[in-house]
Amino acid sequence: MEELKPRPANSSPLTPLGFLERAATVYGDCPSTVYNNTTFTWSQTHRRCLQVASSIASLGIKRGHVVSVVAPNVPAMYELHFAVPMAGAILNNINTRLDAHTVSVLLRHSESKLVFVDYQSRSLVLEALSLLPPNTQRPLLVLITDQDGDDQDSSSSAVDFCGTYESLVEKGDPEFRWDLPSSEWDPMILNYTSGTTSAPKGVVHCHRGIFIVTVNSLIAWGVRERPVYLWTLPMFHANGWCYPWGIAAVGGINICLRKFDGPTIFSLIKQHGVTHMCGAPVVLNMLTSSPKIQSLQNPVQILTAGAPPPAAVLLRTESLGFVVSHGYGLTETAGLVVSCAWKPQWNRLPASERARLKARQGVKAIGLTELDVVDSDSGASVKRDGSTLGEVVLRGGPVMLGYFKDPEGTSKCMKENAWFYTGDVGVMHPDGYLEIKDRSKDVIISGGENLSSVEVESVLYTHPAVNEAAVVARPDEFWGETPCAFVSLREEGSTRNPTEKEIMEFCRAKLPHYMVPKTVVFKDELPKTSTGKIQKFVLREIARSMGSSTVSRM
Amino acid sequence: MEELKPRPANSSPLTPLGFLERAATVYGDCPSTVYNNTTFTWSQTHRRCLQVASSIASLGIKRGHVVSVVAPNVPAMYELHFAVPMAGAILNNINTRLDAHTVSVLLRHSESKLVFVDYQSRSLVLEALSLLPPNTQRPLLVLITDQDGDDQDSSSSAVDFCGTYESLVEKGDPEFRWDLPSSEWDPMILNYTSGTTSAPKGVVHCHRGIFIVTVNSLIAWGVRERPVYLWTLPMFHANGWCYPWGIAAVGGINICLRKFDGPTIFSLIKQHGVTHMCGAPVVLNMLTSSPKIQSLQNPVQILTAGAPPPAAVLLRTESLGFVVSHGYGLTETAGLVVSCAWKPQWNRLPASERARLKARQGVKAIGLTELDVVDSDSGASVKRDGSTLGEVVLRGGPVMLGYFKDPEGTSKCMKENAWFYTGDVGVMHPDGYLEIKDRSKDVIISGGENLSSVEVESVLYTHPAVNEAAVVARPDEFWGETPCAFVSLREEGSTRNPTEKEIMEFCRAKLPHYMVPKTVVFKDELPKTSTGKIQKFVLREIARSMGSSTVSRM
Repeated sequence: MEELKPRPANSSPLTPLGFLERAATVYGDCPSTVYNNTTFTWSQTHRRCLQVASSIASLGIKRGHVVSVVAPNVPAMYELHFAVPMAGAILNNINTRLDAHTVSVLLRHSESKLVFVDYQSRSLVLEALSLLPPNTQRPLLVLITDQDGDDQDSSSSAVDFCGTYESLVEKGDPEFRWDLPSSEWDPMILNYTSGTTSAPKGVVHCHRGIFIVTVNSLIAWGVRERPVYLWTLPMFHANGWCYPWGIAAVGGINICLRKFDGPTIFSLIKQHGVTHMCGAPVVLNMLTSSPKIQSLQNPVQILTAGAPPPAAVLLRTESLGFVVSHGYGLTETAGLVVSCAWKPQWNRLPASERARLKARQGVKAIGLTELDVVDSDSGASVKRDGSTLGEVVLRGGPVMLGYFKDPEGTSKCMKENAWFYTGDVGVMHPDGYLEIKDRSKDVIISGGENLSSVEVESVLYTHPAVNEAAVVARPDEFWGETPCAFVSLREEGSTRNPTEKEIMEFCRAKLPHYMVPKTVVFKDELPKTSTGKIQKFVLREIARSMGSSTVSRM
Repeated sequence: MEELKPRPANSSPLTPLGFLERAATVYGDCPSTVYNNTTFTWSQTHRRCLQVASSIASLGIKRGHVVSVVAPNVPAMYELHFAVPMAGAILNNINTRLDAHTVSVLLRHSESKLVFVDYQSRSLVLEALSLLPPNTQRPLLVLITDQDGDDQDSSSSAVDFCGTYESLVEKGDPEFRWDLPSSEWDPMILNYTSGTTSAPKGVVHCHRGIFIVTVNSLIAWGVRERPVYLWTLPMFHANGWCYPWGIAAVGGINICLRKFDGPTIFSLIKQHGVTHMCGAPVVLNMLTSSPKIQSLQNPVQILTAGAPPPAAVLLRTESLGFVVSHGYGLTETAGLVVSCAWKPQWNRLPASERARLKARQGVKAIGLTELDVVDSDSGASVKRDGSTLGEVVLRGGPVMLGYFKDPEGTSKCMKENAWFYTGDVGVMHPDGYLEIKDRSKDVIISGGENLSSVEVESVLYTHPAVNEAAVVARPDEFWGETPCAFVSLREEGSTRNPTEKEIMEFCRAKLPHYMVPKTVVFKDELPKTSTGKIQKFVLREIARSMGSSTVSRM
């Protein structure tokens, strides 16, 4: 069989870019993106992407150049997921809620040649550019105006911008012939991590990886033809877990929106017949504490990840008619690669038990080769007992190419033993399901015991007055560290707010002594990243500044 | 970005083999295979496959050896789709309905080291081995007995067989550690083509190709979690279009069966709540002409391919409650890679128009990179007018590695221009949907006009008395060739059978003159391959032996 090698006819690169042309053929007359009063069809989206890709090429962008986008979930953002790589460039989405300094660091690090700027982020990007060192080559700028004619002053931008997004569409060639990447390992995506634990790192994914995660995500979530997908997950967050390409593969409808709250979501679900949406647990919380809660007429599939959803939040969400699926992934895996695949027999369990099982991250999805929890030092698998903590490791096509300009960082997590080390701490249950307990950096070491801040948080979430909770380490002269809880309360006029002591007593009844918070701090709101993750490093700073939780007996 | 290359953590080979362990984790207690009174769970199937794989290795089978299976759709057949490649070997399924001479040719050509033989094919395989040349190394034999204790005499086999399949299960190590292939391009499957047009050819597929076709097939058909899949498509036919691996990926139930007819299918659908099944159009015909037709209580998805389904057969099948999907693939693509993706607006069309559209093969599925219809000589795309004939070409991961021991045959169809030439003749419709018109060899050239035998057949199928029809070329001294129709009639006592002349007149009212059959031959039954394809080469021989259809005017 040795003579049988790959040949040109069977080794064309795996890439999701071809899904768009196919969608235009099959679903040409059906809606692709809906945004306020604007609706495009798949034919139009295909044509617009070809036009934008041709205009990007005309601006001098070459294969391998980085093109950045600073925009919310509007149709242009969706289209750029195809148009930028169709022009041969690498798509770099930038979180719109970053500060100008961070944006300038990312633009410099990525050597971005062209930046698509939503009009609401104009001053952010212009300020970021003003912070670049004098001799840095400035990227070209294109302004994304609002297609619905939302109030905006684009005249003052003429000096800074080489055109608007719509002018690129108009000038572009709808017959543009884009080339497949020369290799499926060619970079396609550059995403900077959200920076919950450390300085941003540039995660690079290739066409092959994005293809694998996209098909993987459709199968794992059971997405069939023509879903109606509500874009509550920012596309600038790990490319919306690859669903921009996935929704094209199944010819769905992308319901776009700039920003949202509970009532907006319920209204869009009703208006468009939404079938699917994604979001961090904070979105679930938003739904269940919305002032205009509505029970759904038809079930809506909601996929959550990014943090273990507290059981109480899961229960409240499902009681409204949402079907919650839970998964796990990292920026470094381009999307969700572990999913809490549901066993039919679990439907017979009590609600609280169902929620406990659903809060586990689960098993590898079919695009991932291997998943394990190991002792970080020895590399040996931990016991599958549901309690021995270890580092979550994985391997397979979804794992990134590496960190941009950081060979050391890349080698540190992508080891020669063929595992990618996630930096997440978890346990493997006897039934083979993974449960994340914490980020490595969020583990609290108190009196020599490793304790999971997430476990303490999940107890806090069961307190009826608690809205959100986060637990971090506070330095302690005797114990080393002790758990410090930051808590925001529900706005309910009728009941008296609990005291710090009452919160601690509540925990003491449900947790071993060493896990009970020694400090409780009430806050109106907890600091969060743009994707709704609580910024523990901010809280850790506050806890550190509070000094030792007990006075040393020495 | 140049420093970012594949590393061990992200480049583990794509293969469907890992789906089994995952199914055992998620669906361990759920049924995997059901056969008469035997039911296995996914835990048991996983364990049995590990045991068989370990036993195969113990028999001396090494990486790259060919292991053959001659069996119908029983649980052992299903398990061997995992066990053989887990042992590092290449799975070679052999059609149970071949004659001993052909089987001996295949065993010799494949250099098979081990053959799993279903007890009903014992004499076939023993006879085939007796036909091998004296100095050929004989493969080891393992007997598949019937787990339900069906009547069989296994005692006489002791001399020929090194054991039974169940003894391999029992002796095997359930802790067997199988290795991933060293490369995703390593061969995994060897399938000999059904030989409708020429001598059998050994089609080799690699792990990567089978992975891509498997996930492609789940998405294209919209298969969600836990389908109940009825095995009406033989697994020895192109590995049942990759659904053995696909059903494991979604934790479905495989309803196995040795042989079937209409009443058996209806009975199993009712008994097990079947949701999905596959089959050539002959299966659809079987369903609608079954003596015990039943309307379905719940819709059953049926996927058909292998020949364009006549519109009349489609209509009759759907009227019973089946939801028919139509696709296209070849042994060389491991399964279906083109599917007639259904447009929502087509539901509003009259039934006959819907059937006409559904009889088209469709568009590339998402695992295929490109699909086109080209002029075989110039390689240029034909006009997208729905009438210009050309050769169907495609490229992408599903295309085979090549033909075993046939570099010339491989180069002939897998050209340097990166296209795989299918040998099928089709048209591209203006809406981008492919329609196959014929095999290259089945095109009839009459008076210099290319005419599609399939088009003539589809007219014949609309005649109320016609059960099956096939049209081939008959030599003609004046026209070169003329269409010759072979027809079997429906068994309906009440109506008088039509004459040859009446059939020709029927066609003349609906076809251009040159396409009307000049000869009509009535047969009780048309010769078919094991998968229900009509053997046109047999009919072509008969037509040839009839001599010229008209006397030359010269």
